[in-house]
Amino acid sequence: MFAVCVEVHVKPENRDDFIRASITNAKCSVQEPGNLRFDVIQQVDDPNRFILYEVYRDSAGMAAHKETPHYAAWRDAVAPWMAEPRRGIKHTALWPDTEALWAVE
Amino acid sequence: MFAVCVEVHVKPENRDDFIRASITNAKCSVQEPGNLRFDVIQQVDDPNRFILYEVYRDSAGMAAHKETPHYAAWRDAVAPWMAEPRRGIKHTALWPDTEALWAVE
Repeated sequence: MFAVCVEVHVKPENRDDFIRASITNAKCSVQEPGNLRFDVIQQVDDPNRFILYEVYRDSAGMAAHKETPHYAAWRDAVAPWMAEPRRGIKHTALWPDTEALWAVE
Repeated sequence: MFAVCVEVHVKPENRDDFIRASITNAKCSVQEPGNLRFDVIQQVDDPNRFILYEVYRDSAGMAAHKETPHYAAWRDAVAPWMAEPRRGIKHTALWPDTEALWAVE
């Protein structure tokens, strides 16, 4: 499995817009056949910073996400809300080591 | 729910030791009543960097983890293997918004 941590820093005035758009995107993303998780988390000591924690079955699943209409809609909506460019950091998932333990059902 | 992202940078010669100790710790941690996930992921473009993605039911669960013998054993074992100090960043989990969707069963 592959896990992508996307570090996001938004403008304070667009924080709520970003949360709404990202939860919509997460709900669609977990329906993709290659996706196992799509968590949206907000930093406690700086509420303008978020991480999208995305887990895919394999690299094809990660690539397929970028081709979906919900990803395109999210990307275009959030573009003007960024305080700085996003940073997506790719990881190999070491544990859990079985797919069943990752899934959002 | 609370999510802690622990950013870890290890010495190359201790990478495999760190992986073994952290998987042992993860397997014990998901048995804690307050823990919902404990993922161990390794950065693709720098295999000496890891994230521990820990999700707890509440802040008491997060605090209770630090009191466990498996946490103490991990902390002491990995101390000499760090290339730089760890950084644990606390988050509020926004989505999924129900506990059932977080759990490693």
